[in-house]
Amino acid sequence: MFDVLITTDFSIEGVHFRREWHPPEIVGRRCLTRGLSDIAAMGGEPATAFLSLALPRKLPQKWVDGFFKGLLALAEEFKTALAGGDTAQSPDGIYADIVVSGYVPRGRAVLRSGAKPGDEIYVTGALGGSAAALHEFFAGRRPKPLNFPRHFAPVPRFAVSRFLREKRIATSMIDLSDGLSTDLAHICEESGVGAEILEASIPRARVGPKHSLVSLEDALHGGDDYELLFTARSGKHVPTQIARVPITCIGRITRQEAIVLIEENDRHKRLRAQGWEHFTK
Amino acid sequence: MFDVLITTDFSIEGVHFRREWHPPEIVGRRCLTRGLSDIAAMGGEPATAFLSLALPRKLPQKWVDGFFKGLLALAEEFKTALAGGDTAQSPDGIYADIVVSGYVPRGRAVLRSGAKPGDEIYVTGALGGSAAALHEFFAGRRPKPLNFPRHFAPVPRFAVSRFLREKRIATSMIDLSDGLSTDLAHICEESGVGAEILEASIPRARVGPKHSLVSLEDALHGGDDYELLFTARSGKHVPTQIARVPITCIGRITRQEAIVLIEENDRHKRLRAQGWEHFTK
Repeated sequence: MFDVLITTDFSIEGVHFRREWHPPEIVGRRCLTRGLSDIAAMGGEPATAFLSLALPRKLPQKWVDGFFKGLLALAEEFKTALAGGDTAQSPDGIYADIVVSGYVPRGRAVLRSGAKPGDEIYVTGALGGSAAALHEFFAGRRPKPLNFPRHFAPVPRFAVSRFLREKRIATSMIDLSDGLSTDLAHICEESGVGAEILEASIPRARVGPKHSLVSLEDALHGGDDYELLFTARSGKHVPTQIARVPITCIGRITRQEAIVLIEENDRHKRLRAQGWEHFTK
Repeated sequence: MFDVLITTDFSIEGVHFRREWHPPEIVGRRCLTRGLSDIAAMGGEPATAFLSLALPRKLPQKWVDGFFKGLLALAEEFKTALAGGDTAQSPDGIYADIVVSGYVPRGRAVLRSGAKPGDEIYVTGALGGSAAALHEFFAGRRPKPLNFPRHFAPVPRFAVSRFLREKRIATSMIDLSDGLSTDLAHICEESGVGAEILEASIPRARVGPKHSLVSLEDALHGGDDYELLFTARSGKHVPTQIARVPITCIGRITRQEAIVLIEENDRHKRLRAQGWEHFTK
């Protein structure tokens, strides 16, 4: 028997993407990634997707075709059927709401509420790469998709989440869509715990033609990386790589309800959730 | 065992409602009605709802509170839990995408594709009342909610659809959200059939302070009534009332792939689907 999972995520022009920055194929792919990544974050398997799409009257059909091309390619990669949805005309701008349904063996969904003091905190991959691509856009440059893969072609981490579920490793999990500081705060809030993370341990993405490390700020607060953050009981064996994705321990869960960043000079600093506001500012 | 049903429906400011016309409680209620009515149209029972809401920065909190008040009152009436969703900031205007999940005994969902030549065509209630309310608004008047109940407080027809499912009466079904001409065309297209409907049989809503009959045009093409249209095998007993809702036979399914309106003078006229464009024009 299975539990059914359902997630919904809005992708809005001017908030989550810009037409002059993001080709339609990328917008479609990222739209579905948002939903799939939520299913992965619960240890689930995807089943079907539903798309509600509101489009302005003057949008070229070519844009719509590109959007579906990108979305359907990712859907096929993860065996997710686009099973329906709704279309409407928007007065202005593109609004796409993706609904993904999935399933997980009954009672085995990994929740945000399962972290306990003493648990260790892990992340997959490297963080901040998507935010770094946005800086490039804002600086008037044209970041190349190949140099910023987590921004232009994010892959939901199903192989990792399946392993964690099957081996019963993760006590809580979330995907890093809003940024580490915000998403870790969600885990802490729903588990009623706090956390200490080590600045030196946070895996920062390498981006651009020179594979430069992203800033600590981007790794801490940048959203849309779609990596996983999970906790595991101390002493539980967690591989350093799962399905060829690096797994890094970045800290541990504490009893006090605050998130503390331990800097490289060993100073302790309160880490505030800097809610990912996308790029509306 | 059950089959899971999932529906998604966008409600967009300026397309499905106007802030200066519709109080927020009505917008919230109508938003959820769209989803619930889709579940009813499949003969299903509602389970949970998910709401994706994109709101402009300057929207008063009072508006949001009213929206949720209207939505949650209807959710409670039909024992539907609002189980989650997503919120985002929109550059402009209110966008609400409602997702409703429901269930139906395995294999018993009523589809759009089950109509056969010879089947009789029925509708619940009376049609065109919602469109008539919009005419009032466009004419600069303020229609009173009590005089236009299907516009201001539509009720999804679960009691009827449950009866039809349990008695195995309906061979196909759809809810009248886009208007009779468009929604009947959906049934015909997916069933690979045509239809003949009798002008004199179409139940027209009575609206306004004088309970005036709406125009034939509104009854044929007006959307957002959320009544049900269904087909039943000829000879099957169909009550004239189900759960105190009038049930009217308006015509029959034919072999030829066209929809024909038989006028009161017995002239046959091809009925075109006049796609409900809401009020963008």
